[in-house]
Amino acid sequence: MELKAEIIAVGTELLLGDILNTNARFLSQQLSLLGLDVYYQEVVGDNPDRMKEVICRAVDRSDVVVLSGGLGPTDDDLTKEMVAQYFELPLIFHEEIMEEMTQYLHGNVPPANKKQAYIPEGAKIIHNSYGTAPGILLERGGKIVILLPGPPRELEPLFLEQVKPYLRAKSDFVMKSKVIRLFGSGESAIAQKVKDLMESANPTLAPYAKDSEVTLRITAKAHTEEEADGCIAKMYEQVADRVGEYIYGFDDDEMKIVVCRMLKERGLTIATAESCTAGMLSSMIADIPGASAVLFESVVTYSNEAKEKYLGVRHETLEQFGAVSPQTAQEMAEGIRRASGADFGIGITGIAGPDGGTPEKPVGLVYLAVAYAGKTVVKELNLYGSRRKVRYASCLHALNEVRKILKSA
Amino acid sequence: MELKAEIIAVGTELLLGDILNTNARFLSQQLSLLGLDVYYQEVVGDNPDRMKEVICRAVDRSDVVVLSGGLGPTDDDLTKEMVAQYFELPLIFHEEIMEEMTQYLHGNVPPANKKQAYIPEGAKIIHNSYGTAPGILLERGGKIVILLPGPPRELEPLFLEQVKPYLRAKSDFVMKSKVIRLFGSGESAIAQKVKDLMESANPTLAPYAKDSEVTLRITAKAHTEEEADGCIAKMYEQVADRVGEYIYGFDDDEMKIVVCRMLKERGLTIATAESCTAGMLSSMIADIPGASAVLFESVVTYSNEAKEKYLGVRHETLEQFGAVSPQTAQEMAEGIRRASGADFGIGITGIAGPDGGTPEKPVGLVYLAVAYAGKTVVKELNLYGSRRKVRYASCLHALNEVRKILKSA
Repeated sequence: MELKAEIIAVGTELLLGDILNTNARFLSQQLSLLGLDVYYQEVVGDNPDRMKEVICRAVDRSDVVVLSGGLGPTDDDLTKEMVAQYFELPLIFHEEIMEEMTQYLHGNVPPANKKQAYIPEGAKIIHNSYGTAPGILLERGGKIVILLPGPPRELEPLFLEQVKPYLRAKSDFVMKSKVIRLFGSGESAIAQKVKDLMESANPTLAPYAKDSEVTLRITAKAHTEEEADGCIAKMYEQVADRVGEYIYGFDDDEMKIVVCRMLKERGLTIATAESCTAGMLSSMIADIPGASAVLFESVVTYSNEAKEKYLGVRHETLEQFGAVSPQTAQEMAEGIRRASGADFGIGITGIAGPDGGTPEKPVGLVYLAVAYAGKTVVKELNLYGSRRKVRYASCLHALNEVRKILKSA
Repeated sequence: MELKAEIIAVGTELLLGDILNTNARFLSQQLSLLGLDVYYQEVVGDNPDRMKEVICRAVDRSDVVVLSGGLGPTDDDLTKEMVAQYFELPLIFHEEIMEEMTQYLHGNVPPANKKQAYIPEGAKIIHNSYGTAPGILLERGGKIVILLPGPPRELEPLFLEQVKPYLRAKSDFVMKSKVIRLFGSGESAIAQKVKDLMESANPTLAPYAKDSEVTLRITAKAHTEEEADGCIAKMYEQVADRVGEYIYGFDDDEMKIVVCRMLKERGLTIATAESCTAGMLSSMIADIPGASAVLFESVVTYSNEAKEKYLGVRHETLEQFGAVSPQTAQEMAEGIRRASGADFGIGITGIAGPDGGTPEKPVGLVYLAVAYAGKTVVKELNLYGSRRKVRYASCLHALNEVRKILKSA
C-alpha cells in the first residue's frame, strides 16, 4: 500500500517568521526515504479553531499525519488536546511519564508540566529523554497520527529512534534517489534534452537549478533496495547518454569537492590569481578540509599595479588590451603558476558589476585562463545576474575547466 | 481592516525535504511587519489537482495569498496556470516580458522560456531583473493573489521593491521595525542585558543569532509612521544604553558594508594576508560594489613558504612560534601593509579544522592582526563550529577590529 503522508507544524513563531521550519524539511526527507508520499506541509498557529480545521482535513485525506510542536506545558500548547478532541478520546494521566520528567528535570517538576503526563487513551508514548514533552503515536480508524515535540534536538532523535522503525514496518516500499550534478548548460537546455525521460512515473526525473548549477534527481520507488538501485541505474544510463558531457558529480559532491579530490589523488597543486573574484576561488578551495595539500598560495590582484608586481603581467598588455582581456587573463594564469610553482595556475579577470561595464566590455564579461603543463586555456564567459552571482559563476567555471583538463589527462 | 494572509510554497523539492522553506519564513516576517495576520503556511507539490485544492481554499479563507515557486519554463511549473484557471482568466502574452527576458539572457532566450511571458488577463506584472520569471499581482473579487518566483535571490528583492509598497498602501496599520546589528557578544549574554525590554508588547524587542552575529529587532505597530518611529526611537535609546558597545550597524548594513563605507569615506585602503581564511576576507570586501577604491591587492599564504615569500615573515618566527601564533599574525599584517602600501594590513592565521588541532592549539584558535598607522593590534580568537563558521567568524572579527580603529581614530 502507498501511504500518503502530511506534515503539520504548529506554532505562531513560524507564522511570524521568527524561525525556519527545519522540522518540515527533516520530516519530509525522512518520510520520503521510508517510501511515503508527502503531499502536503502545513503550518498553523496556536489557535484551537484553526488547528482543529487543519487536523480534521489532514486525517481525512492522508494516511499518516505527523504533527510537530504544541506539546509544551503552557496553555498555548494545544496539539494533544485538539487531536484527542478530534478522535473523541479522553486524556489519561501516565505515572511513568511523570517519573521520566522528574528524572529529566532532576526532581524539580514545575506544576505546569504535569499537563505533559496526559496522553490520549489508547495511544502509545514516544518516550523523550531529550526534553519533558513525550511524543504520541496514535492509530485509529486506519489512520496513523504522530505527535512530536517542536525543538529539533528532541524531534529528530525521537523520530529516528522510535517513529522510523515503526513506520518502516508499515510501508511496503523503498524509495531511493540519486542526484546528478551538471555544469555548463542551463536548466531549460538540460530539461529539453531529457524532456521525455521527465515524463517517467517511476523512476521520476526532476530538474532543479541553483547557484549557476543544474541538478537532475532520479527517484525510484520499489519493493527492495536492489530493485530501486537497478531502476535508478537504468535511468541514469539514459540521462548520461543525453547530457553526459555536463555531469560532474553526484549527490553532495560539489564542484569544489570533486576538483579538490582529483587534484589530491594525483598529487597536483593549484594557485589562483584573482581580480574580480578577489579570493573567492581560493577561499572555496580552502573550504575543503585538507585543502593545504593542494593549495599553497594565491594572490588577489585587483589593481593593474598588483597584476604587474605579483604576476609579471606586462605593462604593455594592460595598456593595449586592458585589465579585462584574454591576454591579461593568460598572463595572470601563467604568472601565478610561475610565481607559486603550482601545477595549475588560474587567472580570472572580469567585470562583476553593477558598475564598470561599457558597450564593448559589458558587466558579466569575464576572462578565465588555466595554465597547466606548459599550455594555457583561455575562456571568455558572458555571465549575468548580481555581482555576487557573476563572481561565483566565474569560480565554478574555473574549477570546471580544471576538472575537464584533469579528466582528459 | 486587518488583512488575513496565507503563504503557499509550490515545489516537490520542498515535500521531498531537499530544500528548506526559507521563502515561507521571509514572507511571514515581511507580511507580519506590514501588519497582516498570517494564519497559514502551506506547501504543495507540482500537481495540478492538489494545487487547485490548496489555491481554492486559500483564496476562500484569506484576503491576501502569496504563492512562491512554479513560475519556471518547464512543464512542471504550473502555479500561474492554476491561478488563472481558478479565476477563469486567459493567459495573455506580453511582449515587454519577452524583451526583459531577452535582455536578461543576453539575447539567447530558449524556446521553452516563452511560456514565462504569459500573464493572466488583468494582472499586474512584477518585473524581474534578477531572473527570467516575472512575478504576478492579481486583484480579483476583493482578494489579492501574488505570485513570486521560487529562488530566494529573486523572490526577496521583488517582494521588497514591488510587493511591499503595494501591500503597505492596503493596510490601516503601520508596522515598522529597526534591526540593530551587534558583534562581539553572544546571543544569551545580549538577551540577558535587555531581558526586561523583551517583555514590552509594543514595540517588541526580539533577539536573533545568525552567522556569528546577533541582531535585536524592534517592531512597532502604530497608526502613523511618525508614531511608529517615535516608539522605536525610545526603545532604541534604552537598548543602546545597555549594549551600545556591541552595536555596529542597522537593518541591512552588514559588517563588510559598514567597514567599506568607512574606509571609502576617509580615502583609506586595505590589504589582507590570509592563511586559514584563504581569500574569504578579501572576497567579502570585493563583494561590495566599488570595492576597487579600497582594495588593490591581497595574498593567500597557506604555506609557510608563501608567508616568507610574499610577506617577509621571518623563518625564525615560523620555526619558533609556529604558523598559528600571534607573532606570525603580526608579521603577516605588517608584511602585507608594507608590500601593498595599503593603509590597513590584515593578517589572519588559525586552525579552521576539522583536523589539525592539538591540545595547545585546538581547532578554532585563530590569531588576527591589524597593522595601521605604525601600530599593530593582535587578537587571539577562540572560535567554535564548522570549518566554514570558524573561517567566516575570523573575517568578521577582522572587519570589526578595523571598524573599531576607524571609529576611535
